[in-house]
Amino acid sequence: MRKVNLGVIGAGRIGRIHARNLKFQIPGARLLAVADVVEESARTLADELEIPTCEKDYRRVLANRDIEAVVICSSTDTHARIIVEAAEAGKHIFCEKPIALEMEKIDQALAAVDKANVKLQVGFNRRFDPSFRRAKELVESGKIGAPQLLRISSRDPQPPPLDYIKVSGGLFLDMMIHDFDMARYLLSEEVTELMATGTCLIDSAIGKCGDVDTAVVLLKFQSGALGTIDNSRQAVYGYDQRIEVFGSKGSVVVENKTPTEVTIHSADAIQSDKPLHFFLERYQEAYLAEMNQFITCILKDQKPPVGGADGKISVAMGYAAMESLNSGTYVKVTL
Amino acid sequence: MRKVNLGVIGAGRIGRIHARNLKFQIPGARLLAVADVVEESARTLADELEIPTCEKDYRRVLANRDIEAVVICSSTDTHARIIVEAAEAGKHIFCEKPIALEMEKIDQALAAVDKANVKLQVGFNRRFDPSFRRAKELVESGKIGAPQLLRISSRDPQPPPLDYIKVSGGLFLDMMIHDFDMARYLLSEEVTELMATGTCLIDSAIGKCGDVDTAVVLLKFQSGALGTIDNSRQAVYGYDQRIEVFGSKGSVVVENKTPTEVTIHSADAIQSDKPLHFFLERYQEAYLAEMNQFITCILKDQKPPVGGADGKISVAMGYAAMESLNSGTYVKVTL
Amino acid sequence: MRKVNLGVIGAGRIGRIHARNLKFQIPGARLLAVADVVEESARTLADELEIPTCEKDYRRVLANRDIEAVVICSSTDTHARIIVEAAEAGKHIFCEKPIALEMEKIDQALAAVDKANVKLQVGFNRRFDPSFRRAKELVESGKIGAPQLLRISSRDPQPPPLDYIKVSGGLFLDMMIHDFDMARYLLSEEVTELMATGTCLIDSAIGKCGDVDTAVVLLKFQSGALGTIDNSRQAVYGYDQRIEVFGSKGSVVVENKTPTEVTIHSADAIQSDKPLHFFLERYQEAYLAEMNQFITCILKDQKPPVGGADGKISVAMGYAAMESLNSGTYVKVTL
Amino acid sequence: MRKVNLGVIGAGRIGRIHARNLKFQIPGARLLAVADVVEESARTLADELEIPTCEKDYRRVLANRDIEAVVICSSTDTHARIIVEAAEAGKHIFCEKPIALEMEKIDQALAAVDKANVKLQVGFNRRFDPSFRRAKELVESGKIGAPQLLRISSRDPQPPPLDYIKVSGGLFLDMMIHDFDMARYLLSEEVTELMATGTCLIDSAIGKCGDVDTAVVLLKFQSGALGTIDNSRQAVYGYDQRIEVFGSKGSVVVENKTPTEVTIHSADAIQSDKPLHFFLERYQEAYLAEMNQFITCILKDQKPPVGGADGKISVAMGYAAMESLNSGTYVKVTL
Repeated sequence: MRKVNLGVIGAGRIGRIHARNLKFQIPGARLLAVADVVEESARTLADELEIPTCEKDYRRVLANRDIEAVVICSSTDTHARIIVEAAEAGKHIFCEKPIALEMEKIDQALAAVDKANVKLQVGFNRRFDPSFRRAKELVESGKIGAPQLLRISSRDPQPPPLDYIKVSGGLFLDMMIHDFDMARYLLSEEVTELMATGTCLIDSAIGKCGDVDTAVVLLKFQSGALGTIDNSRQAVYGYDQRIEVFGSKGSVVVENKTPTEVTIHSADAIQSDKPLHFFLERYQEAYLAEMNQFITCILKDQKPPVGGADGKISVAMGYAAMESLNSGTYVKVTL
Repeated sequence: MRKVNLGVIGAGRIGRIHARNLKFQIPGARLLAVADVVEESARTLADELEIPTCEKDYRRVLANRDIEAVVICSSTDTHARIIVEAAEAGKHIFCEKPIALEMEKIDQALAAVDKANVKLQVGFNRRFDPSFRRAKELVESGKIGAPQLLRISSRDPQPPPLDYIKVSGGLFLDMMIHDFDMARYLLSEEVTELMATGTCLIDSAIGKCGDVDTAVVLLKFQSGALGTIDNSRQAVYGYDQRIEVFGSKGSVVVENKTPTEVTIHSADAIQSDKPLHFFLERYQEAYLAEMNQFITCILKDQKPPVGGADGKISVAMGYAAMESLNSGTYVKVTL
Repeated sequence: MRKVNLGVIGAGRIGRIHARNLKFQIPGARLLAVADVVEESARTLADELEIPTCEKDYRRVLANRDIEAVVICSSTDTHARIIVEAAEAGKHIFCEKPIALEMEKIDQALAAVDKANVKLQVGFNRRFDPSFRRAKELVESGKIGAPQLLRISSRDPQPPPLDYIKVSGGLFLDMMIHDFDMARYLLSEEVTELMATGTCLIDSAIGKCGDVDTAVVLLKFQSGALGTIDNSRQAVYGYDQRIEVFGSKGSVVVENKTPTEVTIHSADAIQSDKPLHFFLERYQEAYLAEMNQFITCILKDQKPPVGGADGKISVAMGYAAMESLNSGTYVKVTL
Repeated sequence: MRKVNLGVIGAGRIGRIHARNLKFQIPGARLLAVADVVEESARTLADELEIPTCEKDYRRVLANRDIEAVVICSSTDTHARIIVEAAEAGKHIFCEKPIALEMEKIDQALAAVDKANVKLQVGFNRRFDPSFRRAKELVESGKIGAPQLLRISSRDPQPPPLDYIKVSGGLFLDMMIHDFDMARYLLSEEVTELMATGTCLIDSAIGKCGDVDTAVVLLKFQSGALGTIDNSRQAVYGYDQRIEVFGSKGSVVVENKTPTEVTIHSADAIQSDKPLHFFLERYQEAYLAEMNQFITCILKDQKPPVGGADGKISVAMGYAAMESLNSGTYVKVTL
């Protein structure tokens, strides 16, 4: 059985997830190297997973002739540069979202990928969640007729550290970007214009960073369908990830996923589980499925289902939302 | 036990509901008369409920000295005029929503009510639904902290006849008016501005009447909280009436109500009931509770909890939504 | 429209329910008299509902020639005697369960009913609950194929007073009798034998009365299907009334009914409503529907769907369960 | 990090599950050998997982000095013999349930384990399911007070082949054995006596094998609590695995687990997922968790939480049920 030799660049939280999946759960993958600017992180992960090579400099991974593909999980500001270099080195690329916070950098990265004719898959993991994938299939099958309304609620259990928020690109590019992608994915069509509103209701320190912590965006799709996305940086009851697609023949609703199927009935109340804690728990299967997909695309020479254009459009939507938030008007989504 | 003598004006669908409740379910009420421009309708109802008097002309009801209060369920264009005359006749007034489609008529009606110092309750029945009332209580109690996001989905099982749509005032004044009132009710604060979008996706004949059949409105509240309302004239799975209030300490969610608690498990699927068919079924308890409230307010000389100002603001919000739909900009809600 | 003139005998909790339904909710009924050995109770109810006549002695109700039917809600030990006398007086009879705690008395009552050729409906209200009725219809329709397993859980929110328990006939005749009837109703077939176990786990004082407070009965049906019923005198989370019928093509499950459709999501848990408090709340619609059925049977000269034989068999099953509890063996259900 | 070297004996469905988990998911395990009487099965698995050694004869695994522990997944009739030999070889043992269908063989196996002082864990995987484990924790914590009623429903999506049924030991030893163990596990106490009934309603060919396909068992626990277990060989809607523990302070209910959190709302019905297909899907996490537990017990020199006595008692309960089915009386559970 042919295996794809890979290197993981970035040994943080997400890098470790992908590395473990590649090592243990994906028969078609062979993990040869891990790199991290914090060399200690790379070494710890390499030791744990018995990865042959660990590096401080990702360029040494790119230089490794045995390695066919890289998984980029480093900090966002390095994504585009590494994509360019990886493409030039002829490696297939899996890159965490977003490709970059600057549209020009994204264009440069996509141009390099095109030129090198390597595969690029962007880490929109939620597309691979069994529930959302099933929702997409149902919409595509015509089961609910023509989509008319979309609702996405996406709320985190708690805000990230302020230091992170400062470099994150803001709620629309850091958090709602997933929902922009989900909206396009579920309806298989583009958003033509959007209207964003947002405010700071959770922590005024977030506002002082120039960001919002609560936001609602109204979407208009090519077909005339309408959508709303709401985001909150803090749902005290846990990671809230729900969608609804409503159409001419019915609707499909995705509810939250819980750790158990237990309910407790007492004199006070009927209680059930809070949602799975956060993205690592909620999207465990999705992280594995997206990486399986990437490996399959390499082995079978297929185009990854979430490519560079998807990565670019979602960032463009984020910028449109930021512009709309400032102007108070609809903003067209353009590429 | 003192009883309030009442007359019902309008013997259509809603008039019959209120008449039956007054006759059978509300010990403090005595129904003395019913009027309808279609005399046959008044007579049929009077016969069924053994109401002593039936009239073609509502003025004869207003002239009846034994009658202390009237319940106005006639067509919308007559509401304001009858309110004025009833107030002048010194009757307490329960009036179906909307008071009128024209702001000046509303002002005239409210002025007459003020001058005569009679009670006026507007028929925002949903406030009296046990689930929505419980949600309101939970929000008020501080259980979910400071409200940050509100979501209302309100969808009918099928569109009304085109003839009705033509005189209805349009989706925002006819249908979403309930949700505007619900938004104010749940958060106990005003909407400062709103942004509306809408389109015709269900039946192009509705569009030819100058109306939309699918709409989403984005709300900004005084406190900074954000809200969305979505309306559809046709949810094929039935009358869909859900709300969610999300706050700093949690959220309260109201799901649909079903005729039974039955689920069927078969080789094909796990199936549960569709929602209760339409407003008559869904809000059966609410219609009774609001009328009980009205009678109680008369007997105990209390101010009705849903008064003329509520009736006026909801119409003002409807006009703001229509203006926003046309302009594509935020519109302030002013009185 | 022809109306049935009725008298209610017994103005306790259930008597008041039936009286109110007859007065306000059932157009075909006219309530002419109420009787109660505690004259004050009869008078209070008569005043509240404007019932023309109130009596201390039920015999005066039976002697009233205008009265066509009686609703017997007096204490259990009087049911059989009043049935006999009412039948002899030519009245149609609605009688609360059980007809009597002694099989001979039941036989005498049924013989009198037969001889007088009057209608008798026994108050197994749960058959008229919308959810259980829907379950029955689904089973009858063949939707779940041939029934194979039946599960009934029936638990009260708290035990009745000890004074009541002493005269109640015990858990099997007082409480599980409803479930015995439900079992026969749902499967449209008889139980051939049963095995009962029971114990005293909630209150040892109940045990000192010679009763159990927790019981499980295993049923064998004519078709070979198997069933279990569990009863508890105290479910601290509220009135628990669930059933499941499992068959060759699927199953039908009835869950509890709640006062609202509200869920609260907080940092601690996701909470939903406890079940409706007790039988008066849970079976409100059922009490009305059974009385409507009784009036319809009189007006249309139909046989009541829950007749004397049903009343007798359920008591026979209660005695079989008591015998089985003592003997520890299967006991056949015989009539 | 110290690792436990293991061999897997039996490369069938369950053997492959355990082998994959040991190979990829359990850092403390090193899988050195696999054996199967069908050599081809052993080889295929060894190839797939890169297991160094594959054998036809399990004795060669036992003879391997590097191997510290074995996982016995061969056919039931070989379990006891292999346990004895493995114990004599000084290996720690994980053995699939049941240890044997004959009590003497179980005793011999347990004696050998005792004598060799090796660890033995029996494969009652359901104890390690997150939902059932949570239920157990809640019961143990006192959250629901003193347990009074237990209900277990355990139904397969379809019957096994008749050839399997013939050698399975019958429904009580093959299928309900899991529920017997679950009952003891959840209440942390023993069943003193039981009453079984069963019948053949699904396939008469099962009856011709001398087995039943539908059964209900009534349990009495030491504390006086009562329980019921129902089993069916065929629930057409899928693998149905539910439990309820009801106590003096409340109840804990475990519902089925579904592949997604999707519901579809259409003109026909509201539909949700059927349960996860069968035990491989439903208990995926449980299979991993039980093996993790076994490895941990070896590494930390702890006693496995599901030991030989548990394996023996559950078989004794199966025999008691068979005796009760024949005699129609309660049968005491003795060891």
